[in-house]
Amino acid sequence: MSELIHIGVDLGGTTIKMALIDDTGKMIDKWAIATDTIDNGSRIASDISASIVKKLAQLQIDRSEVSGIGMGAPGFINMTTGFVYKAVNIGWENYPLKDELESLTGIPAIIENDANLAALGEMWLGAGRGARNMVCVTLGTGVGGGIICDGEILHGVNGMAGEIGHITVLPKNGAPCNCGKKGCLETVSSATGIRRLALEALDYNDSDSILRDIFENKGDITAEDVFLCAGKNDPLSSVVAEKAAYYLGYALGAISIVINPEKIVIGGGVSRAGDTLLAPLTKYFKKFSLPRVFEACTIDVAKLGNDAGVIGGAWLAKMKIGKLRTA
Amino acid sequence: MSELIHIGVDLGGTTIKMALIDDTGKMIDKWAIATDTIDNGSRIASDISASIVKKLAQLQIDRSEVSGIGMGAPGFINMTTGFVYKAVNIGWENYPLKDELESLTGIPAIIENDANLAALGEMWLGAGRGARNMVCVTLGTGVGGGIICDGEILHGVNGMAGEIGHITVLPKNGAPCNCGKKGCLETVSSATGIRRLALEALDYNDSDSILRDIFENKGDITAEDVFLCAGKNDPLSSVVAEKAAYYLGYALGAISIVINPEKIVIGGGVSRAGDTLLAPLTKYFKKFSLPRVFEACTIDVAKLGNDAGVIGGAWLAKMKIGKLRTA
Repeated sequence: MSELIHIGVDLGGTTIKMALIDDTGKMIDKWAIATDTIDNGSRIASDISASIVKKLAQLQIDRSEVSGIGMGAPGFINMTTGFVYKAVNIGWENYPLKDELESLTGIPAIIENDANLAALGEMWLGAGRGARNMVCVTLGTGVGGGIICDGEILHGVNGMAGEIGHITVLPKNGAPCNCGKKGCLETVSSATGIRRLALEALDYNDSDSILRDIFENKGDITAEDVFLCAGKNDPLSSVVAEKAAYYLGYALGAISIVINPEKIVIGGGVSRAGDTLLAPLTKYFKKFSLPRVFEACTIDVAKLGNDAGVIGGAWLAKMKIGKLRTA
Repeated sequence: MSELIHIGVDLGGTTIKMALIDDTGKMIDKWAIATDTIDNGSRIASDISASIVKKLAQLQIDRSEVSGIGMGAPGFINMTTGFVYKAVNIGWENYPLKDELESLTGIPAIIENDANLAALGEMWLGAGRGARNMVCVTLGTGVGGGIICDGEILHGVNGMAGEIGHITVLPKNGAPCNCGKKGCLETVSSATGIRRLALEALDYNDSDSILRDIFENKGDITAEDVFLCAGKNDPLSSVVAEKAAYYLGYALGAISIVINPEKIVIGGGVSRAGDTLLAPLTKYFKKFSLPRVFEACTIDVAKLGNDAGVIGGAWLAKMKIGKLRTA
């Protein structure tokens, strides 16, 4: 088997990240272009294709040396056809992304949901290195998830597998979620949810708190502020951080009983809290999983940051296209 | 590819069920022998082997016409080695079941957990026919589970995947479970759990109830009595049935967000309640899943009864051994 180069593409609402990665996972080059959402994103595929073709020419890489393009996009994707059903931030609806990329570049492509792509990246070269059963949780504006069983992303029957932000953790009196339900994990353990819990605590509680000082100074607080203050043993912040960790540990306990992972990787902005999050999270995860499930699993913070998507894309190209081409 | 015959074996605490099944799923013969648990189950493998060898001779089937033996056993199993770590009811500990069966019969064997085997049976010829993403729930003394993603049983990193009876559904004030935790699904939605809820309701509540009449008559009640009375609109029984369905719907909502199945199959004694269980269950499953997850999934009662295990065993022999032999 000759060495191939794998192209990873990660489409976001403002930038498109791209990378060339070799078989061993070495990053040959990475770059980004702006996402042009004008005219319902109709220029995006040609922008990406032109950028890839130009980069390959610059580096004097022939198409025959490339396995393929692994690309992540937000929204609902049909993995078989490479159709994007709907990607609201981009403007696509029933968009034939795989076909467009392939005809514009002459390189085979594979499309995956962006949260799943990041999970694959962490599995290949990040915190999940070597794990074949893994849950990847992204704690950002929402709570995203990518689940890998026996080395493969779970998609389910219509691509909804791993939407773990919408597991109900507060069946009664939960706050409304963007999905239309109430009490979803996302309402309490996302950056947005943690901010909301903290604002409620500040409103409900009169006690002195360094979090309150920040609030009075800046006029607002973030989830990062909450964990920063909890790390300094601010009681009010610690209660909020503990609450967010409790519900995340509760959901991860259930998820782990379902799929029995060896690794849980926590990514997204909130994961920067490190041990201030991981210590209570591990405690509640233990409480709500089973002893044999808990003992087989470690929880870690994601390692690849913004590169997880392009690395996952390159992995997909390597495993799903490259293996076929060199078989 | 020549037609092969597949042997399914399902080991229970009192009987061992066996069957010969052809490629199309037709049952050629089925029979059972008693489980001899004397001397830590040391005779079981030779009893099974002798019974298979005798049956093949009777039916004049040559070993070359057989794909292999797919066998289910209770307890923790290493799928790769066919070792049974521990099967309490049988008496086995670190028992090399696959090796024993193979050396005694001269036929290749594959070992699987019995709940998973039943799930595979329902997928092949039962309520899950044709489904590749499926959850199988057995509501009996406990709550067992088998989860199939993309046609394959989920095992997880150490064989614990699908132990859904131990998902916590009552994080506060839950009843103790056999596993040592509190508030597991098994404590409220198993036959045992439903009986307990009903006894508590009878004790707490003074109202007239046909369930109470049964209790006073027989000195006890079963989960079956509860659903029978709920089917006759007995208010007290209906509340208990609704509660059991609520927690099962809650757990299945979370499970379905994780794996996005097309089919949920409910088996075990409690599933005989039929629509008295399925109607409230579907209502709560809808509430706790997501619209796209709910719409893609149907809930059905298991169809194969006690044959699910041997059929799943034959399916394993067909798919995991037969395919290799005829490739």
